[in-house]
Amino acid sequence: MSMVAGLAPLQIAGRIDRLRERFGDLGVDALLVTRLPNVRYLTGFTGSAGMLMVLPESATFVTDGRYKEQSHNQIREAGVDAQIEVRITAAEQREVLARAAAGARRIGLEDGGVTWAQQREFATTFADAELVPTGGVIEDLRRVKDDGEIDRIAAACAIADDAFQSLLPRLAEGPTEREFALALEFAMRERGASAMSFDPIIAAGPNGAMPHSRPSDRRIQPNELIVCDFGCIVDGYCSDMTRTVSVGDPGPDARRLYDLVLASQMSGRDAVAFGVDCTEVDRVCRDVISDAGYGEAFSHGTGHGVGLEIHEAPRVAASAAGTLLVGDVVTVEPGVYLPGVGGVRIEDTVVVTATGSRPLTHTPKDLVL
Amino acid sequence: MSMVAGLAPLQIAGRIDRLRERFGDLGVDALLVTRLPNVRYLTGFTGSAGMLMVLPESATFVTDGRYKEQSHNQIREAGVDAQIEVRITAAEQREVLARAAAGARRIGLEDGGVTWAQQREFATTFADAELVPTGGVIEDLRRVKDDGEIDRIAAACAIADDAFQSLLPRLAEGPTEREFALALEFAMRERGASAMSFDPIIAAGPNGAMPHSRPSDRRIQPNELIVCDFGCIVDGYCSDMTRTVSVGDPGPDARRLYDLVLASQMSGRDAVAFGVDCTEVDRVCRDVISDAGYGEAFSHGTGHGVGLEIHEAPRVAASAAGTLLVGDVVTVEPGVYLPGVGGVRIEDTVVVTATGSRPLTHTPKDLVL
Repeated sequence: MSMVAGLAPLQIAGRIDRLRERFGDLGVDALLVTRLPNVRYLTGFTGSAGMLMVLPESATFVTDGRYKEQSHNQIREAGVDAQIEVRITAAEQREVLARAAAGARRIGLEDGGVTWAQQREFATTFADAELVPTGGVIEDLRRVKDDGEIDRIAAACAIADDAFQSLLPRLAEGPTEREFALALEFAMRERGASAMSFDPIIAAGPNGAMPHSRPSDRRIQPNELIVCDFGCIVDGYCSDMTRTVSVGDPGPDARRLYDLVLASQMSGRDAVAFGVDCTEVDRVCRDVISDAGYGEAFSHGTGHGVGLEIHEAPRVAASAAGTLLVGDVVTVEPGVYLPGVGGVRIEDTVVVTATGSRPLTHTPKDLVL
Repeated sequence: MSMVAGLAPLQIAGRIDRLRERFGDLGVDALLVTRLPNVRYLTGFTGSAGMLMVLPESATFVTDGRYKEQSHNQIREAGVDAQIEVRITAAEQREVLARAAAGARRIGLEDGGVTWAQQREFATTFADAELVPTGGVIEDLRRVKDDGEIDRIAAACAIADDAFQSLLPRLAEGPTEREFALALEFAMRERGASAMSFDPIIAAGPNGAMPHSRPSDRRIQPNELIVCDFGCIVDGYCSDMTRTVSVGDPGPDARRLYDLVLASQMSGRDAVAFGVDCTEVDRVCRDVISDAGYGEAFSHGTGHGVGLEIHEAPRVAASAAGTLLVGDVVTVEPGVYLPGVGGVRIEDTVVVTATGSRPLTHTPKDLVL
């Protein structure tokens, strides 16, 4: 909890009204929110079980007995105007939702946030209404972060920065990838992170050629490229950073590859600004790498939004839609992967501003330790 | 990986055939497996993305590019006869599944393992077939564990035993609940656990009155009850154990409560055996506590199955169905919770045998450290 002291408050109270403004376009007169990051976003509730039924004039939150006190405290503290109902069984909870939505004729469900089994149960519960599949509605609201959200992402980035830099000397001792990943995770948790935003990737030598390599029992050697991709969670918000380092000089080929990816990443960061096409940031990064003949070796998109989830809107990729907004928090993470040889990836998390971007990750980009 | 050396091999190869034997009762001529623990159970594949289409005479596994090599290695090593297809996009993967299921007229989906969005996409993909909702089919096959599975659960239990006992002296130093939980997690990871089977519960003093309390920044005091509920994962398989301890004598009331729960837990363990009703184990535990006047304070079921998931079949509760089978692995975990005062819970994970049960958790049940 001390992690949150001094951070700007979250502006939760107005979010349900912004959701209601979308009802017309969605063609619904009620929306049932079941995806937990979305429930959290709209209410401030952080527990593992809760649903929110939103109507134009009311909002009803339902959870089980474990969260009676917590839900009242958190929803009141967030200043959210919602009726709170506590019921033990799923059937009782659905009854509460049915009463809350009485009269609604078209009820939206999050089609990626309910199972088929749940949807069929809701079809019985809301027998007088039509169920309308919706997707990405609240995720779209979540794109633009308020100051409190940016503070929390920045705090998570700062923990990751500090933990990583404190552990760099250990790389020279030749730990296994798994040992180093575990030490890094522990260092972030000790500094106040509640969890990892994803399992750390520590991929040395040939393992670096796999973008999503899992830490292995292979020992990290001197003079090889080590891809380190990791992040943590503070008060629900994620960080994400990649650095590629080497204990000692990895040789001229590796240095050239590193400088290429670094140039690509800096170009991409420089391209980030309000109004820029998401595809454009990807193109700028990709051109640098393609012009050097490594286009095929950059086998993934350039970046993604970061917030309550580690991968959220907007995407930054050749197939992405739309333009960047002030308050978007996105990663810029080009990479080059050479099977049998190794890989380089460099990644920052940045906030989009009116004229460019502000980095939230600050670890220096020195290749050689 | 060294964690698996010396453990009995998993008997994966015959499992798909046992699933096929259920097709008649289910009224399907194909079943699409999407829940990852079930995919893993049937194929040995441990990645984060994969689906399995099972027909009477064929099985087709589809994953994305990240898992090309891994899926071939793991499915071959398991001795599973399945066609492996690697496709990048979800649409391409659905096309592969459609070809694999050509001719099938009733295709089962796991209704708790697909979102409504996925179900609607599959309805288009399998336009010539009827989609049949199924639930709990493979989960039911998973109930009875083979020797390799029991070995892995036992290895996870042994790690939890050893980590906890190594850390008990630290409780006297007055750590916060959060600090102790983190140390415990780290100790299990250092000993080879790949992850926690759930976030550890460390609940001291009044916090112990909440069965699902989250570790707080409250310091652990001498002479108070400390509920410690934790487990880890080895090669995919979970462990689960609870001990309640006190640094110094917690006083006569607490000791009486502890002895009561211990008597309940031992009675429950003694009741576990092949053929016994799952409700009966719950009743035995509950009677001991109710007879002492604390029935209302035992506010949850007695136990649950443990395996690839931390909560799986069978349930051990007043409302549970069926009888125990040889090879079921279940917890026995009665508790008593007194708001404002504290709680006691004691839990072992046991394997059901023909004549009783064999414990997999071995930490002594001494209240006072």
